[in-house]
Amino acid sequence: VRAGIIVTGTEVLSGIIRDANGPWLSEALRARGVVVSHIVVVGDRVDDLRSALDFLASDGVDLVVTSGGLGPTADDLTTEVVAAWAGTELVHDPALEERIWAVVSRLRKRMPFEEEAMRAGARKQAFVASGSAVLEPVGTAPGLLVPSSSGPLVAVLPGPPRELQTMWEAAVETSPLRELLATAGTLEQRILRFFPLPEPTIAATLRELDADALPLEVTTCLRRGELEVATVFDPSAESAYAGFEAALRDRHGDVLFSDDGSTIDQVIARLLAGRTIATAESCTGGLMAGRLTDLAGSSAYVLGGLVVYANEAKTALAGVPADLIAAHGAVSPEVATALSAGARSRLSAEIGIGITGIAGPGGGSAEKPVGTVCISVSTATDAEERVVRLPGDRAMIRDRTTTVSLHMLRALLLRA
Amino acid sequence: VRAGIIVTGTEVLSGIIRDANGPWLSEALRARGVVVSHIVVVGDRVDDLRSALDFLASDGVDLVVTSGGLGPTADDLTTEVVAAWAGTELVHDPALEERIWAVVSRLRKRMPFEEEAMRAGARKQAFVASGSAVLEPVGTAPGLLVPSSSGPLVAVLPGPPRELQTMWEAAVETSPLRELLATAGTLEQRILRFFPLPEPTIAATLRELDADALPLEVTTCLRRGELEVATVFDPSAESAYAGFEAALRDRHGDVLFSDDGSTIDQVIARLLAGRTIATAESCTGGLMAGRLTDLAGSSAYVLGGLVVYANEAKTALAGVPADLIAAHGAVSPEVATALSAGARSRLSAEIGIGITGIAGPGGGSAEKPVGTVCISVSTATDAEERVVRLPGDRAMIRDRTTTVSLHMLRALLLRA
Repeated sequence: VRAGIIVTGTEVLSGIIRDANGPWLSEALRARGVVVSHIVVVGDRVDDLRSALDFLASDGVDLVVTSGGLGPTADDLTTEVVAAWAGTELVHDPALEERIWAVVSRLRKRMPFEEEAMRAGARKQAFVASGSAVLEPVGTAPGLLVPSSSGPLVAVLPGPPRELQTMWEAAVETSPLRELLATAGTLEQRILRFFPLPEPTIAATLRELDADALPLEVTTCLRRGELEVATVFDPSAESAYAGFEAALRDRHGDVLFSDDGSTIDQVIARLLAGRTIATAESCTGGLMAGRLTDLAGSSAYVLGGLVVYANEAKTALAGVPADLIAAHGAVSPEVATALSAGARSRLSAEIGIGITGIAGPGGGSAEKPVGTVCISVSTATDAEERVVRLPGDRAMIRDRTTTVSLHMLRALLLRA
Repeated sequence: VRAGIIVTGTEVLSGIIRDANGPWLSEALRARGVVVSHIVVVGDRVDDLRSALDFLASDGVDLVVTSGGLGPTADDLTTEVVAAWAGTELVHDPALEERIWAVVSRLRKRMPFEEEAMRAGARKQAFVASGSAVLEPVGTAPGLLVPSSSGPLVAVLPGPPRELQTMWEAAVETSPLRELLATAGTLEQRILRFFPLPEPTIAATLRELDADALPLEVTTCLRRGELEVATVFDPSAESAYAGFEAALRDRHGDVLFSDDGSTIDQVIARLLAGRTIATAESCTGGLMAGRLTDLAGSSAYVLGGLVVYANEAKTALAGVPADLIAAHGAVSPEVATALSAGARSRLSAEIGIGITGIAGPGGGSAEKPVGTVCISVSTATDAEERVVRLPGDRAMIRDRTTTVSLHMLRALLLRA
């Protein structure tokens, strides 16, 4: 079973917002054994949406999933275009309108706005393609499963990611999508994550293993400084995959940190169970603590942190001696060490992370160019300390700093 | 002039990484008066890339821009496929290989890896489409401008966003792209940002103004809780736009916070000039300080912050009395007030932001469900204080909290 995805919205096409639905649907489809050929992003224009439908149909897909364009505004035209394309008519569903209106009425209690406008919106959203299966609204927009006589089944889903994801679960339980998915096989996916591992090295390994000749779809990708090897395969190729993974472990096992899909964040969360940690950060400005607390349950081990942007704050909050800063500079291994010790002592934590660096674009020098970051991860008796030079712009340097720090933390925790 | 964008990469198609190049290219093209019809994401498969090229050509675009698939690994096949599609041959450029090798050699100094593998990669990357204009590598991959006899010009650019963005600037100065762009007109874009403004209200306003009948392409979009109205138009429609904007100001001017493309972060940065600010945050865990320090130059006004995840940290670091927490709970307006006062006093800052809330998924109660967040933004003599209930998952609640806090900060600063 092959599928195509159409993401609608001029705000997505024009780069104003980044699409989350295409990637999410792609993963959801692959998990059900469906191969996705293309994701097409189109603006809110009738012709461009039609041509995207034509393209995917001519490409021979069995299923098209659309996201967006189901709202109350006039530029929301997906239902209308899909119905016309599939050769069916729009029909008004009064009972559906009442259910939408009930949701809208609840929303109105929180914000005062015009009843007439809201009612017009609810009425518009209650027009559905004749002959299609209606998916109950999660927000205010219903979804549709629209059969086309000779082409693919079209699943019409709303744009807000939470609505789309919830409605997808309902859609796969609804015939005809259930029947279509029943004919799909299964696809296995495995992800190995390495750090640090340069892309040319993995490329050489794949060439050496003649990975192209294996019955595996192998993709390598650098993400936030880590290297991912994602492999998709038919269950019959399980032993080929096992041999492939063993060969990768043989060559790069020392930098393999995840073989079960876990991110470094999840790996760290498991290792931190039963311990306590605190941060004192300068150039990352809170992002390190923010990343440690991204995961639910992090309150069990994150006690807190200090954001010490100004030098006075480094001294007053983290107890970094002013003369240490004067002697070595605010961006120095010595100050990083003092920050991680300060984080531990001020928050009574077992583990401290100290970060000080130059995120740019200003503030660099010949000796300490933009991207220079000093990191110290320590306990009372052990430490990982590094000075790194990170590439990229301010946002990338700040983000990459948190990744490097997490890998240093992993090294420390593994030997603790 | 119309264009289509093809983003290649199984890692993008499969949702492993999110594409940044499609939106960036879309904005860059619009800035040069080019209308983008579709962004197509394809995996690293020859047939799917070919069919995407066929689709855009049949759709009549004048220009196709591709991103990715130019690396040293075997799954990088864009140059090969585009050359074959355009009916030209691949030719090896020895001088280009030497230039690539010089870059690769510099990289090798930082990481030890195999010379032979690297050399093979550089050789692969030095095959270019005959008759095309070669764009010098920014990383190791050269780009290409490939003319096709009867179809669109194809600009082949690398996948890493920094490389792509830098190379794009070179591409637009190179004939034949320069010649093609010279025939494009200009398109104006204006963005108005409102907070808070519900989508149905703006929908009603647009209906009332009969915006569909105006010579303007109007897109509305909720982003991070803010409502954006983006309008693209031909310069001849300037006065129609002026009337449209005036009508929006008339109805919703009280919640309009940006009319020049500025984000709330940039608005705040300007308002904070000459002042000092500090944070004390619980549920956002550092993201508030992290967001305030996103912008270069923020060290002029951000002194630092306290991440007080544990109750003990709230007391020890931010000076929140333990009995205040016991009396009202850690998530309470009283504790938020104490946190913002604590941030001010501990960091000797003029302005403090205090945040405490329940980001979930656990920790909610009937009285204080997940999404309840207490925010206080204060100076010694003034304060904005709110208890909000935010929708969404943990990540969304944490992010939305920082947006609401920035708008409260704006209100405080505007009357200061």
